[in-house]
Amino acid sequence: MDSEQLREYAHQMVDFIADYYKNIENHPVLSQVQPGYLRELLPETAPIHPEALEDVLSDVQSKIFPGVTHWQSPNFFAYYPSNSSIAGFLGEMLSAGINMVGFSWITSPAATELEMIVLDWLAKALNLPDDFLSTGLGGGVIQGTASEAVLVVLLAARDKVLRSIGKDALGKLVVYSSDQTHSALQKACQIAGIHPENCRVLKTDSCDDYALSPKALSEAITHDLSVGLVPFFLCATVGTTSSTAVDPLLALAKIAKDNGIWLHVDAAYAGSSCICPEFRHYLDGVEEADSFNMNAHKWFLTNFDCSALWVKDRSALILSLSTNPEFLKNKASERNLVVDYKDWQIPLGRRFRSLKLWMVLRLYGLENLQAYIRNHIKLAGLFEELVNQDSRFEIVAPRKFSLVCFRLLHQQDDDSANKVNHDLLDAVNATGRIYISHTVLSNKYTLRFAVGAPLTEEKHVVDAWKILQDEASTLLRSL
Amino acid sequence: MDSEQLREYAHQMVDFIADYYKNIENHPVLSQVQPGYLRELLPETAPIHPEALEDVLSDVQSKIFPGVTHWQSPNFFAYYPSNSSIAGFLGEMLSAGINMVGFSWITSPAATELEMIVLDWLAKALNLPDDFLSTGLGGGVIQGTASEAVLVVLLAARDKVLRSIGKDALGKLVVYSSDQTHSALQKACQIAGIHPENCRVLKTDSCDDYALSPKALSEAITHDLSVGLVPFFLCATVGTTSSTAVDPLLALAKIAKDNGIWLHVDAAYAGSSCICPEFRHYLDGVEEADSFNMNAHKWFLTNFDCSALWVKDRSALILSLSTNPEFLKNKASERNLVVDYKDWQIPLGRRFRSLKLWMVLRLYGLENLQAYIRNHIKLAGLFEELVNQDSRFEIVAPRKFSLVCFRLLHQQDDDSANKVNHDLLDAVNATGRIYISHTVLSNKYTLRFAVGAPLTEEKHVVDAWKILQDEASTLLRSL
Repeated sequence: MDSEQLREYAHQMVDFIADYYKNIENHPVLSQVQPGYLRELLPETAPIHPEALEDVLSDVQSKIFPGVTHWQSPNFFAYYPSNSSIAGFLGEMLSAGINMVGFSWITSPAATELEMIVLDWLAKALNLPDDFLSTGLGGGVIQGTASEAVLVVLLAARDKVLRSIGKDALGKLVVYSSDQTHSALQKACQIAGIHPENCRVLKTDSCDDYALSPKALSEAITHDLSVGLVPFFLCATVGTTSSTAVDPLLALAKIAKDNGIWLHVDAAYAGSSCICPEFRHYLDGVEEADSFNMNAHKWFLTNFDCSALWVKDRSALILSLSTNPEFLKNKASERNLVVDYKDWQIPLGRRFRSLKLWMVLRLYGLENLQAYIRNHIKLAGLFEELVNQDSRFEIVAPRKFSLVCFRLLHQQDDDSANKVNHDLLDAVNATGRIYISHTVLSNKYTLRFAVGAPLTEEKHVVDAWKILQDEASTLLRSL
Repeated sequence: MDSEQLREYAHQMVDFIADYYKNIENHPVLSQVQPGYLRELLPETAPIHPEALEDVLSDVQSKIFPGVTHWQSPNFFAYYPSNSSIAGFLGEMLSAGINMVGFSWITSPAATELEMIVLDWLAKALNLPDDFLSTGLGGGVIQGTASEAVLVVLLAARDKVLRSIGKDALGKLVVYSSDQTHSALQKACQIAGIHPENCRVLKTDSCDDYALSPKALSEAITHDLSVGLVPFFLCATVGTTSSTAVDPLLALAKIAKDNGIWLHVDAAYAGSSCICPEFRHYLDGVEEADSFNMNAHKWFLTNFDCSALWVKDRSALILSLSTNPEFLKNKASERNLVVDYKDWQIPLGRRFRSLKLWMVLRLYGLENLQAYIRNHIKLAGLFEELVNQDSRFEIVAPRKFSLVCFRLLHQQDDDSANKVNHDLLDAVNATGRIYISHTVLSNKYTLRFAVGAPLTEEKHVVDAWKILQDEASTLLRSL
């Protein structure tokens, strides 16, 4: 680790990466390689002797890039976005340069304190209730992903109720969500040992725009209580993965509160939009939630990973996740003067992730971040309009944010209609010119067009629609 | 995300980071700030308007750095090392630049395939059994930390046994480890719902060099079986955190096998040394283990985080951790042609971490990596010699790798001796010139001197010893 060699090589890498962005549209968005392609291109063992950086970079270009699905391409419209930005990238560089492991306050006080401060900033920008600020009994923490966020709060809620009714009652605990809730909740339940038959996946409907029905929730709770089960956790979503459905937080929160249920709000994707006053109403009711999560690494210009979680009662997290081995004891921790984030998360070690979020907030400012969100929502609105103008297509679910759910109409039976849309998806993605993904809503195979890559401009949306129309025409002719 | 602005700003950041390394010895190693220091230096809310990069970097220098504990300083001897290197740093940069989310093969085939290949490379360099290679039924995966590694295999083992005896038997499952096992196991047990009274923490002893006793294990298993409990998981350690104790894998593996117990080997720190033939014998017996873990981010020049986990039966992991939501379905996965690493880990999303490990292996080569390890072990040997030459000190546990456990002798009672060593630790760390940490062995407060920062040279070790001697002299005079 010679600082001058670092300087020389890292400058080379900067140019390599800047060139990557400059030419990103020359790559197929969705990698077109076949499974196992890379093993044929690389040796079977690690080299004994050192190799040159030039050779490695040349291999990245010729062997790695063909296998990359380019999430930063302006033509990436699949899943939800995973933003990279100059500020986010610089933050990652700095964090990797300092390369400290911030499990306890003492192992780098700035890492813990900056995280507390920046999550307070973000909480204020989202107009979250003061209970979520680090200055009270709650606070924010950066998790790797929304999966880890929902897992740690599920564990906190599980242990809280088991402390009062006894740990042998695990088999009685019931978790509530909708059939639109992200699979991360199911995984968290598997990990936490919640019995699968006690995971209530409440059915949603197109007439409710796929939102969780408070009535269905109430009924399920009443039934569960009547058979001696223990309702303890509800996951509500603001902006579901399939269709950006928004669960009615106010009504759900009331039911949760009446029944002593931990309410977690998953706004992994749509949370970012709530820094704009005109979208903040989607969070109304979050005041009554026990925990709230949004992914800054999705649609908030912060490189992956950076999932922001806030809780009202940090002691519940700490009771579930803390250990106190001798080799980590230190004065500041023992005197309870500090936050040790190791006790708020699954892993022990943690990176300095607050740096990148801090740099995003400072280098762009809230005004530009709002403009960024609004522009993507406008572009999605444009795409929706284009779909509406072509009578061969239909919009499948109402658009609220930057995702459009649509499909090709087909006069045959449901199965054929689904197959046509599946074929259209494959055909479009095989062009390598755009990448979109799909879902199924009310048994309808549905195409998802998610705007959100930082490089996406109006022309990319217009071109994407042209590609979709052309592929649809070809497909319909072949039937 | 303009590529030319990225280029300009990132070049600035490279110089900032290279300068940081150049001047790293000018900072106190252990941050000397007081709890809450940063809140007074930063505004209460995020800025509305954008700020300049210069201002942010100036704040990093004046406000963040004083709160950083400099893990990359050549004078960092605390805990275990967390290596940064040019190759590791470049790999982080590239990964942050591509910024893809590799949960499924299709979302970037190169990310999954490079990870499989590079972990096969590392398995071969460690001479792990072929069962751990991805070409068979097992394979390697990069986890964030050793905590996550032990958690996922504990879950796999838990669910495997519960599938055969029924999920209501959770309260009967017993986990075995020693009192030297890392606290990550305790945390994993808390998460997995293993009852605390079924976590057997077997006592170790100085006469066994703090290694887990096969006899004690056998006896515990026999007793547990006799009362109807179900032994199912054993965590053995090669290189414990307190003192680098090595559990006798061969004997333990036999007992585990005879009782159908999942054997996990945690070599988070010492595993790196086993790429040297002369240290490989510490892993003898790993052939019979079900899973094996070593942290490339500790002592293998790969920036945090990069914890390498291998399993023999990947299907056990997948059965515990997979979910299959509609919005992630794709041809390659449905045809079972590919590995989807989302089903081998807690989170859904994952970074392109194999890049940095690949770059470390290629830019240094195994020969240099071996020389790197040997040099640190030699330096630790030198430190041990220096301690031995000063009759005021004693070595507390035998040195096997690059950690020296030692303490100041004190003629008074045990409590006073412990207090003197505690005071010595505080005094030394308060100088800001070196940072060491501690543990307790057989009730003795013990100082830990872990060599392993890439910048550490002989002069740093010699100087560190001088500081320790001087502070000890001052302390002893004051008594």
